[in-house]
Amino acid sequence: MKITLIGAGNVGYHLGQRLHKKGFTIVQVFSRTLEKAERLATKIGASAVHKISAISATSDIYMLAVKDDAIEKVSRQLATVLDSHKKLVVHTSGAASSLTIAKYFQNYGVFYPLQTFSITRPVKFSTIPICLAARRKKDQKLLLKIAKKISKKVAFVSDEERAILHVAAVFVNNFSNHLFHVGHSILSKERIDLDLLKPLILETVLKIEEGTPFAMQTGPAKRGDTQTIKKHLDYLQKFPKYGQLYTLITKSIQDAYRR
Amino acid sequence: MKITLIGAGNVGYHLGQRLHKKGFTIVQVFSRTLEKAERLATKIGASAVHKISAISATSDIYMLAVKDDAIEKVSRQLATVLDSHKKLVVHTSGAASSLTIAKYFQNYGVFYPLQTFSITRPVKFSTIPICLAARRKKDQKLLLKIAKKISKKVAFVSDEERAILHVAAVFVNNFSNHLFHVGHSILSKERIDLDLLKPLILETVLKIEEGTPFAMQTGPAKRGDTQTIKKHLDYLQKFPKYGQLYTLITKSIQDAYRR
Repeated sequence: MKITLIGAGNVGYHLGQRLHKKGFTIVQVFSRTLEKAERLATKIGASAVHKISAISATSDIYMLAVKDDAIEKVSRQLATVLDSHKKLVVHTSGAASSLTIAKYFQNYGVFYPLQTFSITRPVKFSTIPICLAARRKKDQKLLLKIAKKISKKVAFVSDEERAILHVAAVFVNNFSNHLFHVGHSILSKERIDLDLLKPLILETVLKIEEGTPFAMQTGPAKRGDTQTIKKHLDYLQKFPKYGQLYTLITKSIQDAYRR
Repeated sequence: MKITLIGAGNVGYHLGQRLHKKGFTIVQVFSRTLEKAERLATKIGASAVHKISAISATSDIYMLAVKDDAIEKVSRQLATVLDSHKKLVVHTSGAASSLTIAKYFQNYGVFYPLQTFSITRPVKFSTIPICLAARRKKDQKLLLKIAKKISKKVAFVSDEERAILHVAAVFVNNFSNHLFHVGHSILSKERIDLDLLKPLILETVLKIEEGTPFAMQTGPAKRGDTQTIKKHLDYLQKFPKYGQLYTLITKSIQDAYRR
């Protein structure tokens, strides 16, 4: 089975290496930035290309790992070099509908690894949930076979479900990370040692192995400790925007436990 | 050195066991609920008491691990059984001022383990930052000696700094955990497998070993991907309160990267 990888950013970089490691042949790596294509291609024995017209039509699967808002445009361009009735083209996005590709390719699908990726950080791919979709039964089987080789957790997920998963992922990942930033930013402005918070951040997450986040909730909002909340809000007058966040999230916690 | 522990909830339960394990003698454990006092006392060779009047005046240090809003009252009652000019009395709270105790005891201090505790979950105490304060130099030395035996990370922290740390801790722990809950709650209402999010939550936190949360931020808000943000907000009309959170945190992320 031959795979072409379109995109060599955070997702492509790790996905390409994992596929290669598990014995799949990556024929070409495409990126508009040749250096990016090369950075990945040289690691996985693929050839690097930076023009859509240089993409070869000989692969079995074309995996798009480009930014969400580029999927449409890249699909349109890709359709000019591939036979749009034959090729299986999938994207790797949590947010984009599979229909973005369906406009240009009859055999379309999704291969979405539900994880946050950074070039600099190795990830343990075997535990990453892979969310799959494809129009044809045959392609579903093919994607399942590939996904099962690179991860222990594979699920077929409709466009609608994937969109919901992506919203939830934004809350638990993007938004939580931003709150870590808020904590850091307060300490850094006050010249207090940032490392004092690290064990707490780590434990916040390890705790969810113990019970649901709902059961694990602690703190003044949960306890209804209005004195402490008032003290915190008084202090946060120094950082009014963080004060707004504090007020709304505190209210949201209190709502959750009022039910 | 003899220690009396006032309070046997989440903090007292773990702190008492750690002190005992490191060779300190816990003479008595007090809790209004005798069962709670006993649950801890039997583990650490202490006697359990549930009346303030039963607290013996023979210890060197009295550690208050009671709820924030009980510190004042318990201190006042404790002053009736102890010599308020001689005894070292510390509380273990992030939010309460040391002055709450100072009203009743000349030799007051703070012994605050910056971590989230649950009875059911063992914690690795050696990495928990212990934030110390005491009026007298002599007591500072004593607390330092104790803290260094139970943890590798010890810092003297003023009341003001501790209050700031506590605000930051609420953001990174309480509020992040609530966002994990929001993610779970959405999936659970939509009957989507909750486990699909777990690797992402774990990675969110492990990433902070790699760089600051500011550097590690990803997602539509950071990218300025307005199309995806709009799609998410459309979906969240189903959960208006979560929609409010989404809007405000997205705005906060965008503010952070606009600077």
